[in-house]
Amino acid sequence: MLSHQARQASECVAPGVFGERIFDLVQQLGQHSELPDGLMCTYFSSVHKVVAAQLRDWMRSAGLTAEIDPVGNVVGHYAGAPGATQTLLVGSHYDTVANAGLFDGRLGIVTALVVAEYLHRAGLRLPFHLDIVAFSEEEGVRFSAPYLGSGAIAGRFDENALARRDLNNISLAAVLLKEGVDLAAIRALARPPKTLRGYLEVHIEQGPVLLDRGLPVGIVTSIAGSARFRVTIEGVAGHAGTVPMALRRDAVAAAAEIVLAVERRCSAAADLVGTVGQLAVPHGLINVIPGRCELSLDVRSSDDTTCEAAISDLCTEIEQIASRRRVSATVAELSRHRAAPCAASMQSALAAAIARAGVVPFYLPSGAGHDGEMFAGVTDIGMLFVRCGNGGISHSPLETVTVDDADLAARILVDVLINLD
Amino acid sequence: MLSHQARQASECVAPGVFGERIFDLVQQLGQHSELPDGLMCTYFSSVHKVVAAQLRDWMRSAGLTAEIDPVGNVVGHYAGAPGATQTLLVGSHYDTVANAGLFDGRLGIVTALVVAEYLHRAGLRLPFHLDIVAFSEEEGVRFSAPYLGSGAIAGRFDENALARRDLNNISLAAVLLKEGVDLAAIRALARPPKTLRGYLEVHIEQGPVLLDRGLPVGIVTSIAGSARFRVTIEGVAGHAGTVPMALRRDAVAAAAEIVLAVERRCSAAADLVGTVGQLAVPHGLINVIPGRCELSLDVRSSDDTTCEAAISDLCTEIEQIASRRRVSATVAELSRHRAAPCAASMQSALAAAIARAGVVPFYLPSGAGHDGEMFAGVTDIGMLFVRCGNGGISHSPLETVTVDDADLAARILVDVLINLD
Repeated sequence: MLSHQARQASECVAPGVFGERIFDLVQQLGQHSELPDGLMCTYFSSVHKVVAAQLRDWMRSAGLTAEIDPVGNVVGHYAGAPGATQTLLVGSHYDTVANAGLFDGRLGIVTALVVAEYLHRAGLRLPFHLDIVAFSEEEGVRFSAPYLGSGAIAGRFDENALARRDLNNISLAAVLLKEGVDLAAIRALARPPKTLRGYLEVHIEQGPVLLDRGLPVGIVTSIAGSARFRVTIEGVAGHAGTVPMALRRDAVAAAAEIVLAVERRCSAAADLVGTVGQLAVPHGLINVIPGRCELSLDVRSSDDTTCEAAISDLCTEIEQIASRRRVSATVAELSRHRAAPCAASMQSALAAAIARAGVVPFYLPSGAGHDGEMFAGVTDIGMLFVRCGNGGISHSPLETVTVDDADLAARILVDVLINLD
Repeated sequence: MLSHQARQASECVAPGVFGERIFDLVQQLGQHSELPDGLMCTYFSSVHKVVAAQLRDWMRSAGLTAEIDPVGNVVGHYAGAPGATQTLLVGSHYDTVANAGLFDGRLGIVTALVVAEYLHRAGLRLPFHLDIVAFSEEEGVRFSAPYLGSGAIAGRFDENALARRDLNNISLAAVLLKEGVDLAAIRALARPPKTLRGYLEVHIEQGPVLLDRGLPVGIVTSIAGSARFRVTIEGVAGHAGTVPMALRRDAVAAAAEIVLAVERRCSAAADLVGTVGQLAVPHGLINVIPGRCELSLDVRSSDDTTCEAAISDLCTEIEQIASRRRVSATVAELSRHRAAPCAASMQSALAAAIARAGVVPFYLPSGAGHDGEMFAGVTDIGMLFVRCGNGGISHSPLETVTVDDADLAARILVDVLINLD
């Protein structure tokens, strides 16, 4: 336990200590990219390794013992007070999507880093060990397999992903082999649950909810469960001029009804979203009635029952649309993840620190997936969202946070760490 | 005028004389293709030239004076009776779409060819010259410019098309230059309207109307007018998990409403069709709300007023959908063709011959465009549709007609030619 003096110190970290530094570090990381005109950093690319090395060096300069682990996670260890046994993990990911924003993932790493540096400089030892983790892979861009970094540390590395191949037809197994990493090394990264005090992550919201409410930060209640599908509609192609409307079996018209059904059904519950992000008519011609149409479907809710009910209703409705239009529709499930609830203890610790910073605690689910999903059920997880500017846009160069909000998030993290027993 | 004996002869061409031969010739033409596993014959390809030479040779063997003209049309001349001054054109096109059916275009050429051969062998001279024309370009595949062959003969060659480029970035002007064809040579192909007796074409229906009615042939009343548009919708991209449904400005959802609006509006008039043949989300991702969606729109009617009214209503509805959804929608017109009515005299000549063959004359508009469009307003046009098998499918290897229907069409054509005064 910390002394009363230490607590006092933590509660009066002056505003402005962290914000500019966080921005500076995030911007430095953003200089390294696989694209000439936008940010991209994918698993085990040369750019990815440069970023990992940079993070390791920064962690060491911050007073941590830091190494890059076999799957590319950068782990910085800050030893706890004498007698500490468990470890609190605080982190986020440093890989990005294509043409990414600067803050997705990196904001959480850098915030944890400057906070650890602050604790070290202030000589504040916590009643647990603190591991700052920069996860190597969360987005799933290169191998369509997300959470490779956090999965390894949580003991949930997806070994089925080893067979997946990137755009150059190189498998994940081949990449790891080239790096000298075998399955035993990956399995050895798994932290025994009893050694963990919990998992905390600061992340940009990636949506407009906090912005709309005028709040700088929010407490995540749950990471949404998600299900992804590919829907293929087979109708009958025909000449656009010669087949009367009533005789058509138009795959795009069926797809259009499905898109609107997804929108309607997923608007019918507060904590539910559904998206058709991909829709294509293969080899479509302006003067041919589409005989085939393919679309993607992504359904999410922080409540598994809500998600399942929507999926079930949509599958029924897709069948009805197809039957009425005399087309076939096949729905192939690509993935399904259960919702990952944040621990009540972590939520209340965040709420107390937010209140002490003079902000109204506000709770919201995370529609996006995060590394914390891997730790749900392994240890207590907590997440702090930071307000996303520009209308809440993310996965885009327009993604942004303010210096003040980043600063506040770091001050709240200091407070939570010091006051977590 | 023909003698009574000649008319008698024509009216008793025995069934079965033409059908198998038409099939044989169509199948021979289908052997020449730009694709290994499907039929494709596009303007001035080497395959296209082989087909032209084959048609010319067949026309010569049939007793016609035949040449390939500068734009690639194959024209076979069968001189009329002494005193004949005008020329009746009978033809169709030999170019094809990609992965085409055997009959589209070629059926009409080959039917005209076997009929001319029959007239020649029977020593039947008509009161007008007969030119069998195999048009070189109707589909507009290579240069997105249709009717290059018939346009030249009708005096309506689209000189703006000279700047268009094929997929290899070669312009039509460059192709013609390489063939030694200049504008003067193209313009010289135009037939003065007063020299023409009319234009007749036999063509596969390319739709299911005759099949549904159990009729082998039908009389075309009008070639539909058409308008083509490209609709571009700009919404706001966003994370599929984090933007609540109510805050979305989803380009695909707007597109879906437009697709269904097209279907609904174009089902509201009998002689109207509307098709969204192309629909795409550029760079769409499964977990991103689409910020942009592009679709094509093709609207046709044999009645120009019906077509205009539908287009006007759809433009209004697209605006309303976009406005309600807070997205932008731009509608760019790509082309617009007025309907081309078939001459009453040609329709009644066809009807009389059909009735004499023991079939109920049935009238229908052509939703597809045809070479006859170029001759509407230049001379009297007439078209005979032949029933399309396999549910009316066309622009597909499944496109088919029966031997009996082809035979009947040829016998009707003989009758029409002999009885047209």
